[in-house]
Amino acid sequence: MTSFGERLRTALHTYGPLCVGIDPHVSLVEEWGLEASGAGIREFGLRVVEASAGRVGVVKPQVAFFERFGSAGFAALEDVLRAARDAGLVVIADAKRGDIGSTMDGYAAAWLAPGSSLEADAVTLSPYLGADSLRDTLAFAVAAGKGAFVLAATSNPAAHVLQSALVAGEPGETVAARVAREVAAAGDASADSLGSIGVVVGATADRDAVGLTDAALERLPILAPGFGVQGAEPSDLHRLFGPLAANVAASESRSILSAGPDRLAARIEERAGLYAEVNLG
Amino acid sequence: MTSFGERLRTALHTYGPLCVGIDPHVSLVEEWGLEASGAGIREFGLRVVEASAGRVGVVKPQVAFFERFGSAGFAALEDVLRAARDAGLVVIADAKRGDIGSTMDGYAAAWLAPGSSLEADAVTLSPYLGADSLRDTLAFAVAAGKGAFVLAATSNPAAHVLQSALVAGEPGETVAARVAREVAAAGDASADSLGSIGVVVGATADRDAVGLTDAALERLPILAPGFGVQGAEPSDLHRLFGPLAANVAASESRSILSAGPDRLAARIEERAGLYAEVNLG
Repeated sequence: MTSFGERLRTALHTYGPLCVGIDPHVSLVEEWGLEASGAGIREFGLRVVEASAGRVGVVKPQVAFFERFGSAGFAALEDVLRAARDAGLVVIADAKRGDIGSTMDGYAAAWLAPGSSLEADAVTLSPYLGADSLRDTLAFAVAAGKGAFVLAATSNPAAHVLQSALVAGEPGETVAARVAREVAAAGDASADSLGSIGVVVGATADRDAVGLTDAALERLPILAPGFGVQGAEPSDLHRLFGPLAANVAASESRSILSAGPDRLAARIEERAGLYAEVNLG
Repeated sequence: MTSFGERLRTALHTYGPLCVGIDPHVSLVEEWGLEASGAGIREFGLRVVEASAGRVGVVKPQVAFFERFGSAGFAALEDVLRAARDAGLVVIADAKRGDIGSTMDGYAAAWLAPGSSLEADAVTLSPYLGADSLRDTLAFAVAAGKGAFVLAATSNPAAHVLQSALVAGEPGETVAARVAREVAAAGDASADSLGSIGVVVGATADRDAVGLTDAALERLPILAPGFGVQGAEPSDLHRLFGPLAANVAASESRSILSAGPDRLAARIEERAGLYAEVNLG
């Protein structure tokens, strides 16, 4: 079994850092001429998968936009997840789940258990309840060849209030740094491999403000939303992530999806090309 | 329109603090002689609703146990939510969602928008991304006559690491206290009413360790999981919550659900009676 970290590294190496966000926001779905319904978002998602396959290595369906349509939305998401995995894409379900004990096991079974109707390659998790609450899920992920990205630092204006708070016992350690430390401890990274358990770090998150150094993130896969319309450009990747840039999945949604269904594949090639130029440059 | 806070206050006043958790954990579903499937958990949930109606005021479906079965689980959850609301129960969807911007709007539309297939009376939310990330959702809830419970302090062993971390700018303010302060500011509580926006505080959470005083929680509805099998007894309610006890929805799951389908109603009456004795005593 190839670990998630290895599959992700291969995908990023082959296609570059661009991760296509599958965000069937109601306004976008309607701009595409589709109905705001389970059927409409299914069509939306499948078209994004089709345009992504062979052009990028990673896609990230945003679960909230499917959940908004209840069971019909989840049925659409199941089809989109399956199509994406069948197309050989690495699929990160952006669900930001977080709970404790057997409840967390329920989420792990939903998103990471082989054979689940919602099976993805990795899921995003929220650590408010503490790293101990996620430990079993992270171990389950590694054992199943799956991955997880735990929220560490985000780009929204007041994110730093909580994420820069100082934990007791370790002088100067912030909440975000503690999350990164516990994620690293739970993962399967080694000197010559990328781990399967990583972090979410917003592209424009103030990493200095939340005390998240390059050393803290070494060998962790990084899911970085916030590229494209949300503020960071491909040319910023190395400035923002320095030596970690090779481990970053740079997620763009609106910058790509706004192209509409007919120009979608061309837009993906164009955006992916911008990252390739940076890597060559 | 009656606010969620007023509906909750009426429910707690009429029936007492017991909130019945609807947790179709696979092992419980099988103990009940039902199939571990969408159909099985639908039946499980509907039986809990039927036994709860007229015996308690509040129920709390745990979304993870439905999500585990994908779209079939969500279809079951839709039926359970509808049946519970039709029965006049106050329904708290325990989803612990948390994201930013338009993504968070997706979750709000799913759980709180009137007419949504997943419509509940209130939803639980996770604040790792900062209070600004939840502000629009909390305002949406209040305007729609809905409610929300934001995670503040939980009972798991390492919860205090993050929840007791000290935020910058306000000497001595913990993450949990900051969450409570921002929740209070976002709510609609007044001197003579219970607010619609509250907090999740585990029954056995170490409130001292995370700096969550009675004053910080005044007039906030409190969802307190952890009664019953998880460690706190009805007789502990006043010791644990003191002057706040009247605002607490004390959630029990396994202590009730372990009775099995035939003895469920009797078990609910028995457990509800234990809280009533405390209130009389």
